Amino acid sequence: MTRFFVEPEMLNTQTITLSGENANHARVLRLKAGEEVLLCDGQGREALCRVTDSEMTLEVLCCRESQAEPDVQVSIYMAFPKADKLEHVIQKATELGAAEIVAFPTVRCVSRPDDKSLKKKLERWQKIAASASEQSGRGKIPQVVVLGSYKEALQRAAMANRAILLYENERATTLKMALEAAPLTTVSILSGPEGGLEEKEVEQAKEAGLHICTLGSRILRCETAPLCALSAVMYSAGEF
Amino acid sequence: MTRFFVEPEMLNTQTITLSGENANHARVLRLKAGEEVLLCDGQGREALCRVTDSEMTLEVLCCRESQAEPDVQVSIYMAFPKADKLEHVIQKATELGAAEIVAFPTVRCVSRPDDKSLKKKLERWQKIAASASEQSGRGKIPQVVVLGSYKEALQRAAMANRAILLYENERATTLKMALEAAPLTTVSILSGPEGGLEEKEVEQAKEAGLHICTLGSRILRCETAPLCALSAVMYSAGEF
Repeated sequence: MTRFFVEPEMLNTQTITLSGENANHARVLRLKAGEEVLLCDGQGREALCRVTDSEMTLEVLCCRESQAEPDVQVSIYMAFPKADKLEHVIQKATELGAAEIVAFPTVRCVSRPDDKSLKKKLERWQKIAASASEQSGRGKIPQVVVLGSYKEALQRAAMANRAILLYENERATTLKMALEAAPLTTVSILSGPEGGLEEKEVEQAKEAGLHICTLGSRILRCETAPLCALSAVMYSAGEF
Repeated sequence: MTRFFVEPEMLNTQTITLSGENANHARVLRLKAGEEVLLCDGQGREALCRVTDSEMTLEVLCCRESQAEPDVQVSIYMAFPKADKLEHVIQKATELGAAEIVAFPTVRCVSRPDDKSLKKKLERWQKIAASASEQSGRGKIPQVVVLGSYKEALQRAAMANRAILLYENERATTLKMALEAAPLTTVSILSGPEGGLEEKEVEQAKEAGLHICTLGSRILRCETAPLCALSAVMYSAGEF
């Protein structure tokens, strides 16, 4: 079924007229009278609608909670990587059901956006999340958040029901051990940049209450690790 | 520890002299006498070596099975995707521990290499697998295999201990149900191209003995689905 993201307040009416990009999209699709489409507010609510005689005007049939959102809320905390890897992770983590993607600096981060370019980049990143949400049929658009320090990232990540740091030198604790200790409601997954985290940073994470976990005996790239862990969390939480 | 891939027969000697690309790599790294390096045969055996006074000559300390290979053998069967998505999947599936990556045509495949370009492409794909193996510290280089038909892919995939087809319209059977039915030794994961598999193709897979599974209520891109499932299989098999 065709899906459009609209402003939340639009779902409160009985008749909805598409505008802007949605109208362009509807024109390309040549919607037919009687056809059903889904309008999502990007915050987890959606309206099942029927196209009226005018392809731009939709009659609301029913409003409901989105059925494509996972029960578990997973936040991906990723140290600023090089090049367009953050964009890749935003797109894939959105498909895989992440609730938010949080970027932050660490000691070994080679690249981090300056204050000047940050606003534009954030807009771009949020657009990638919106587009991946639409394509994957999600009811919510994950927020992309940028934090100013590693300390702030640790404090924020630690507030989840389960906070996990992925570390290639960890040997004893597997992700499974950390996940199976209690039911999953909110999960933070934190991982380092290309050069890895410094030992001192791992110690700080431990002190902040994060579980230090391995993803097995192979070294994953910085853009692979969070997506691998996110897949495992969704699997472990019974999503598939 | 620095790692080099060498021809399997080289591991049968007591002293090994690096040559070709490995020699260039060793020069760049400025190996020091006494330093330990790992030579891997790409088939699961490795030799721990010590650099002698000449940086190109290594003394073998011990030979052993690679410690970075998963116990479960997972084959990724992917319908030919567009553009460079197969390269992406080869790189990532190698990192995540796949035993082989098998590409094949389906009805809705938009692109598939012609016989002329296939040999060059296979060489390139195998190089990507080798390079990802090296970077991720694996002891084996996964084989990249190209099959001529969907039927052949089904027959080959069905020979695994557990053969799974990922299908976005499946609602009842989760990957977890299919994986937890018996211990995991060899697993095939088969998935479709951008446009998805035709219903008839899904029926054929069922007849061939594959389990049709969902990866949850979000639609994953054709390059995301196999990597998500591979992560879940490795997690389920106790790899992390």
